[in-house]
Amino acid sequence: MKPTTRERLLEAAVTLTYRDGVGIGVEALCKAAGVSKRSLYQLFESKGELLAASLGERASAFAAGLLPAADDGRSPRERILYVFDQLEEQAGAPDFQGCRYLAVQIELKDQTHPASRVAHEIKANLTAFFRSEAERGGASNPDLLARQLILVFDGASARAGIGADNLTGLIAPTVTTLLDAAGVH
Amino acid sequence: MKPTTRERLLEAAVTLTYRDGVGIGVEALCKAAGVSKRSLYQLFESKGELLAASLGERASAFAAGLLPAADDGRSPRERILYVFDQLEEQAGAPDFQGCRYLAVQIELKDQTHPASRVAHEIKANLTAFFRSEAERGGASNPDLLARQLILVFDGASARAGIGADNLTGLIAPTVTTLLDAAGVH
Repeated sequence: MKPTTRERLLEAAVTLTYRDGVGIGVEALCKAAGVSKRSLYQLFESKGELLAASLGERASAFAAGLLPAADDGRSPRERILYVFDQLEEQAGAPDFQGCRYLAVQIELKDQTHPASRVAHEIKANLTAFFRSEAERGGASNPDLLARQLILVFDGASARAGIGADNLTGLIAPTVTTLLDAAGVH
Repeated sequence: MKPTTRERLLEAAVTLTYRDGVGIGVEALCKAAGVSKRSLYQLFESKGELLAASLGERASAFAAGLLPAADDGRSPRERILYVFDQLEEQAGAPDFQGCRYLAVQIELKDQTHPASRVAHEIKANLTAFFRSEAERGGASNPDLLARQLILVFDGASARAGIGADNLTGLIAPTVTTLLDAAGVH
């Protein structure tokens, strides 16, 4: 199946933005997608809308790459640790530059930008997963634990993304300590 | 004392890059500094070199705003918590956009860029502070604790910078839990 013009634009946006940042030009996006500017603006109101749509398109792959299957029989503690194992593995890839949703929000510096809103929403879903597992696992303060876990997720992926830390021997002990302190055994 | 051309350029670079990102143009920098492009290129080889110099110039203010005075009589545990109190306070400012050194590295996506190198070095100094206090405080694994603390620092400042968390009631319990687990009392 040949990808549609829309699909090629979304793929180019997601790939080039991750590699080069949100400042990537419309010309470069169109060139990578093999699409005219006219076609881009027929499908998307602006580069910002294309970027927002490309992040949204990626959301299910993001969740699938991190979250355990629903009702997989694992305990909440194991399901939380699973996410961080996935992150550690993904961070080992040579082209890993950290969490794309955090990067987009840091780069845009505008929480009202459509792409910032989409990115915020996707990460809020990950926080909600942590919150729900924390509660099921009997955390003394599920809200606090969820905030701690998404903080560790963002801190770890950012530091791995800039090459400041390879995460080896770091995430599992950190998350384990927080789970223990919250009483999630 | 009137600031020199160099000082005005450094100030413009540090301010505009923080507000708008590393993609800020040379024209905008020169305009904000009230300086000609010719003057900029007489003082700095490139925009990248100006950016690197502006980050380096800021390093002592960054340290002064976060670190406790040397030999202030506080315990290592208190000295570590002091840094995070400062971060929490700074994160409450309306123009807070997270740690500028993390942002620059995420935005540049090039660890060999002169500004990335400077930013990396400045954060490595903060990690070294944590490492040294962890050791003085008798941490079971000072290297691990230092990596955990800088991870929390980056995660917390990034999440506050994008408006995803206000950090209230988050950092102190998180750092306390990590200090306790490391045996730093």
